[in-house]
Amino acid sequence: MDPFRNIGIIGREGSGVVESLQRLIVFLRTRGLNIIIGDHIQHLLEPQYLHDVRVSSRKMIGEVSDLIIVVGGDGSLLAAARTLARFDVPVLGVNRGRLGFLTDVSPDEIEQRVGEVLDGQYRIEKRFLLDAVVTRNGEPIGVADALNDIVVNSGTSAKMIEFELYIEGEFVYRQRSDGLIVSTPTGSTAYSLSGGGPIMHPRLDAIALVPMFPHTLSSRPIVVDGNSEIKIVICESNTTQLPVSCDGQVHLTAQSGDAVYVTKKPHKLKMIHPLNHSFYASCRDKLGWNTSNF
Amino acid sequence: MDPFRNIGIIGREGSGVVESLQRLIVFLRTRGLNIIIGDHIQHLLEPQYLHDVRVSSRKMIGEVSDLIIVVGGDGSLLAAARTLARFDVPVLGVNRGRLGFLTDVSPDEIEQRVGEVLDGQYRIEKRFLLDAVVTRNGEPIGVADALNDIVVNSGTSAKMIEFELYIEGEFVYRQRSDGLIVSTPTGSTAYSLSGGGPIMHPRLDAIALVPMFPHTLSSRPIVVDGNSEIKIVICESNTTQLPVSCDGQVHLTAQSGDAVYVTKKPHKLKMIHPLNHSFYASCRDKLGWNTSNF
Amino acid sequence: MDPFRNIGIIGREGSGVVESLQRLIVFLRTRGLNIIIGDHIQHLLEPQYLHDVRVSSRKMIGEVSDLIIVVGGDGSLLAAARTLARFDVPVLGVNRGRLGFLTDVSPDEIEQRVGEVLDGQYRIEKRFLLDAVVTRNGEPIGVADALNDIVVNSGTSAKMIEFELYIEGEFVYRQRSDGLIVSTPTGSTAYSLSGGGPIMHPRLDAIALVPMFPHTLSSRPIVVDGNSEIKIVICESNTTQLPVSCDGQVHLTAQSGDAVYVTKKPHKLKMIHPLNHSFYASCRDKLGWNTSNF
Amino acid sequence: MDPFRNIGIIGREGSGVVESLQRLIVFLRTRGLNIIIGDHIQHLLEPQYLHDVRVSSRKMIGEVSDLIIVVGGDGSLLAAARTLARFDVPVLGVNRGRLGFLTDVSPDEIEQRVGEVLDGQYRIEKRFLLDAVVTRNGEPIGVADALNDIVVNSGTSAKMIEFELYIEGEFVYRQRSDGLIVSTPTGSTAYSLSGGGPIMHPRLDAIALVPMFPHTLSSRPIVVDGNSEIKIVICESNTTQLPVSCDGQVHLTAQSGDAVYVTKKPHKLKMIHPLNHSFYASCRDKLGWNTSNF
Repeated sequence: MDPFRNIGIIGREGSGVVESLQRLIVFLRTRGLNIIIGDHIQHLLEPQYLHDVRVSSRKMIGEVSDLIIVVGGDGSLLAAARTLARFDVPVLGVNRGRLGFLTDVSPDEIEQRVGEVLDGQYRIEKRFLLDAVVTRNGEPIGVADALNDIVVNSGTSAKMIEFELYIEGEFVYRQRSDGLIVSTPTGSTAYSLSGGGPIMHPRLDAIALVPMFPHTLSSRPIVVDGNSEIKIVICESNTTQLPVSCDGQVHLTAQSGDAVYVTKKPHKLKMIHPLNHSFYASCRDKLGWNTSNF
Repeated sequence: MDPFRNIGIIGREGSGVVESLQRLIVFLRTRGLNIIIGDHIQHLLEPQYLHDVRVSSRKMIGEVSDLIIVVGGDGSLLAAARTLARFDVPVLGVNRGRLGFLTDVSPDEIEQRVGEVLDGQYRIEKRFLLDAVVTRNGEPIGVADALNDIVVNSGTSAKMIEFELYIEGEFVYRQRSDGLIVSTPTGSTAYSLSGGGPIMHPRLDAIALVPMFPHTLSSRPIVVDGNSEIKIVICESNTTQLPVSCDGQVHLTAQSGDAVYVTKKPHKLKMIHPLNHSFYASCRDKLGWNTSNF
Repeated sequence: MDPFRNIGIIGREGSGVVESLQRLIVFLRTRGLNIIIGDHIQHLLEPQYLHDVRVSSRKMIGEVSDLIIVVGGDGSLLAAARTLARFDVPVLGVNRGRLGFLTDVSPDEIEQRVGEVLDGQYRIEKRFLLDAVVTRNGEPIGVADALNDIVVNSGTSAKMIEFELYIEGEFVYRQRSDGLIVSTPTGSTAYSLSGGGPIMHPRLDAIALVPMFPHTLSSRPIVVDGNSEIKIVICESNTTQLPVSCDGQVHLTAQSGDAVYVTKKPHKLKMIHPLNHSFYASCRDKLGWNTSNF
Repeated sequence: MDPFRNIGIIGREGSGVVESLQRLIVFLRTRGLNIIIGDHIQHLLEPQYLHDVRVSSRKMIGEVSDLIIVVGGDGSLLAAARTLARFDVPVLGVNRGRLGFLTDVSPDEIEQRVGEVLDGQYRIEKRFLLDAVVTRNGEPIGVADALNDIVVNSGTSAKMIEFELYIEGEFVYRQRSDGLIVSTPTGSTAYSLSGGGPIMHPRLDAIALVPMFPHTLSSRPIVVDGNSEIKIVICESNTTQLPVSCDGQVHLTAQSGDAVYVTKKPHKLKMIHPLNHSFYASCRDKLGWNTSNF
């Protein structure tokens, strides 16, 4: 018996996406599966691809699908993860973006890799997300989540902020810098890495704190247990609204006196990997470990 | 004969500034020198300090002074430098800011250090500035200058830009990153340093190019001859106005297709150092070389 | 009832050590406790300090003591840890070395802090160690352990080695570099830190792999789960014996074709901290987080 | 008229070297030039390649040649540079090594590139070398030189040394670290780069000082004018002979109390580049600037 009967498909507009959507729908039909497609990409498809397909909102797709396939780049998968983590449905990515650390299936092997997954040839990896809560005078005023990273900074590049960092309630430091990146293992090969953060294996239960252009030369990335509560208190010297970006999207701001709490989200994302997937192979391939030798 | 007869004083409001201004005026009077004070700080002083003092605009002060004393932080001296570099007048800084890499005289030794300088006990160090010119369709549309650094970035933190770098007309790379810092030796102990750039001795004739959060892990700071022409071409993938900040101040923006040219300014700033000044002592003191040992 | 009746004392010769040993013995006598002192430091003490004290080998001390106090530097505590981890006895350090990340009690507060510990005012923190096993043709030829780090390198500075890294049996990369540091959280504020590794909180269950002068610019520190098996295979291009150093001591060597396995040791070190101990306070103090601001 | 009549050929044994030597000799014969070959590689060639060829020592080749072609890797060119810098003869490299930052001509284009050079289609770039002098009690006890870098360290990896650094007679810092790299611009893409040093353009007149695993987190690479005198004083805490390596070769050692002086060598190496050579293209190609993007 197929483990997956109802297959949700979501994604975003972009180069090659339509072609991959079509190819995916044709293939899933050959397997006799129920297809539910996101209403945000319906307009990308001609009627012949839609006649026996249900169209639903993203959230509804999360509820009714056994498997969700995301067609797009890492950004599409990040967005899907934030929406879908609360449902227990596994997610598989078809890469139509630049890098594809999160989207394992390359467009020219859709039938083979998706076929393997449908045949039960896959591995599930749980990835945790972070919750960010901004509090003012002790009251929460905003909440958002992220699969990669939560970044508190000045909102204006090359402009310093000042904050205090607490981990598990313990004072760590008061820092002047461009900001702070709080990264999951999943995010450790994204923005955090370009800021000098360590690569963390996806199965490590840890959070990395990476200072951005710190004015303390001895400040270094810190890695703490994934269950730690991170608190960033915005110092009174900051006079503007500071964006709190989640996976590069700004949904929250904080101001002088506010605290930004970052903790692990209770729900995890279930990522599906074809059996040939290897995290280190991705690193070798995508980070240039094989080619940037001197 | 005193080398300096006409002493200009400029600065900015801030903690302790009034006290230092008063102390400085009283001291200069005892030496019988002509004092010209910037009209932007006139309001900080009570009448008794102003009765025999000329008040002028900053530019006029640049023209009529033999020596200019800046009371404030490094930021005040940076601003003064940009205004005054075209005049051939030497500049001395009294430190009322946090760090004071550029402002040698500490407030409690005004009489001693300024006295020494007036007695001819000083060293002059020429510091070069950078000119930034933004061109559109080959025509210049904006010009600004900097003593520390010129930074091209997204204007929004944690947001990538894409540009091509050319040095002396030669293609260097196409890069996606948060931006690029172009730093003088003077700026090498400021923003550039927090971004991983090398410390450059003030007398080195060189420019450092420091990538900000580059998405190429093999991208490193590059140091080139101080007479090199740097050209940064904004790629078509950028859809917003990118700020070009000069010493942290934004006077210019660039957009897709524009080129930002950075070259050494013909006029240099003449900085005056008391004879006890040492660049490496400043590093030991201000960067924590003595204390952050493990 | 005192939790600790039999107190072992070990250490090493060095500046101030004798004074601290004397002070410690005098204090423990006032508490009426049994004192056992290491035979390697017996010669440091005059007869009056030894008359009611047992003298034993380090190992015997591990077996008969309820608490062991190490007087010396971090190196002394590292050595003690490697000897004592197999016994379940907690260890407290009196700092007579330079840094003291591991030795919490400063010499001038021996009575107060040791007194508090004897009164039950303390916290126990378990620190894991690493086992290194060198195998040749599949057979183990040498074993050693470390609390801080295991380093495989050329034995000659500025000389490259070539190796393959496997984590949990998965190939990571083939690298040319000066070597590789495998660090525990405890070691993350020691050698690993000077090589660009992240700071890891002592309670994090993780291992960091830090390349030394890698000839791949995109090679970065990697952090993996503490239960991972690390395997370093020495490539055929290495023509000399490579030292495998454990906490800076060389007990093992490896040659072309050998594999060095690094895994978590089953026994943990029980470190005792006075209640005023804070890891982040140590970082602020010892790494210069408060002073190296610019 | 050919600018080059007498062509010296040197090199080292290694993969493909014989083939390139043969091809080069055959080609130079077609141009009717005088060939002088190093006696250290004579044994690599069969008689048919030697009948009309002079065989000489390296030094003699330096005296009698108008152009010297080095067949080998960067190491061969480094060795040649140290021997030949005193003669005013230009040097061209045929790459038979791994990287080839210094050896511009790839083996499969010998006829084309060497032909262009012989036709006068080339650019000469002067590269400076460094002299290292070890003094004891004020007297020089050893001298060596380097094109890439001079490294003072412990000789045993992962072992700290302690030294004082002076630049132009001015005290910079006292440092505990694994050692110090003093690098030319030419060396800035070699060992110095793997230690976090900046890339310096070959025409920059500067020296970089790169600390190796410094125990001061705020210690950073320093770039100073190429005419600066660098002095490294070995502190009394060092109890062993410290190797002073030049381009990775150890010819000198220093001990407690000794000073190592590093200065620019009066003679420069004249490197010949085919006109298609570009330093930044080498960086893109060899450092992976094009491929390690994420």
